[in-house]
Amino acid sequence: MSKGALLIISGPSGAGKSTVCRQAALRGDVYLSISATTRRKRPGESEADYDFLSVEEFERLIALEAFLEYANVHGNYYGTLKAPVFESLDKGRSVFLEIDVQGGAQVRQSYEGAIRVFMLPPSKAALKERLLGRGTETAAEFEKRMENAIAEIAQSKDYDYLIVNDTIEETVQMLLAVTKASEQRVKNHLDFIETFL
Amino acid sequence: MSKGALLIISGPSGAGKSTVCRQAALRGDVYLSISATTRRKRPGESEADYDFLSVEEFERLIALEAFLEYANVHGNYYGTLKAPVFESLDKGRSVFLEIDVQGGAQVRQSYEGAIRVFMLPPSKAALKERLLGRGTETAAEFEKRMENAIAEIAQSKDYDYLIVNDTIEETVQMLLAVTKASEQRVKNHLDFIETFL
Repeated sequence: MSKGALLIISGPSGAGKSTVCRQAALRGDVYLSISATTRRKRPGESEADYDFLSVEEFERLIALEAFLEYANVHGNYYGTLKAPVFESLDKGRSVFLEIDVQGGAQVRQSYEGAIRVFMLPPSKAALKERLLGRGTETAAEFEKRMENAIAEIAQSKDYDYLIVNDTIEETVQMLLAVTKASEQRVKNHLDFIETFL
Repeated sequence: MSKGALLIISGPSGAGKSTVCRQAALRGDVYLSISATTRRKRPGESEADYDFLSVEEFERLIALEAFLEYANVHGNYYGTLKAPVFESLDKGRSVFLEIDVQGGAQVRQSYEGAIRVFMLPPSKAALKERLLGRGTETAAEFEKRMENAIAEIAQSKDYDYLIVNDTIEETVQMLLAVTKASEQRVKNHLDFIETFL
């Protein structure tokens, strides 16, 4: 049996990553990785959204090199534990890792076979609209978000795949095609070839 | 608009390449490239199978560098003309090129973005069975075919994707997934990213 594929999904907020990843994971039987964090649970959040850890636990796990990647953002840790990801891959089940460009680069360093997918809204206007749609921010916060998005998009050129999220259905199909293709990479099947010969 | 993807499909005879390529091309609206050849038309063959050329025409086209790849096999020329392939890619329509490993290597040299897909029967026993199933050969011819197949399979390690043709329906799906993914490669969308920024 061949290993699953590890897919890093990045893109600016407002690109629709979460919705697409959730639907594609469900439909393609892909494991959607859950981040560990030390930040407080927000109203409405559950263990299905994050793996909530204490700072002590998180730091103990860092010391044990248990993370595929982690970062400290505004005083809170966020990270991806190796164990559930590798267990899934070993069972032949692919994994989606929704993660920012910096995190993606960390993952790629420790797992060379990771495939990087960048998701974009169909246009700058659509990005603006989607960011504005959240409606919870001041103008300054919005400008900052736009700036961050543009800076992140500039880094998409180093990714393997670009998916433009025009309609969710099409985007889910594209992500599933990339997943299926990634599972068929020759590197993933060298054992099969050896056995065949 | 982004360019189509050029997919090289190789594999031993008996792997089922032709059937799968024909069905996937139809379903995915992919252009299935037709070889040019100087060998005689066999009973039942038509212009849909090969582009039948005279030796003079073929050699004139070689001199014009009109071929993406060509070879002389047992005194007959076989080759792939650049024009229909590049026209299709430029219109955003992907192309399947069913071709042997040597031809695939030639194509890769002149078109770096070509994606190489190797198709295999599910086991050596199945390969044997499929080759025997043709029933038109002497034992010596069969042995030679088996040897060639094994030598070709050994080279599959240099390919990008491996597809095991267990059931046609699944294999068609896998080839279409690889095609769809190949169309989404970042390299194919650098213009879009530039425009977006």
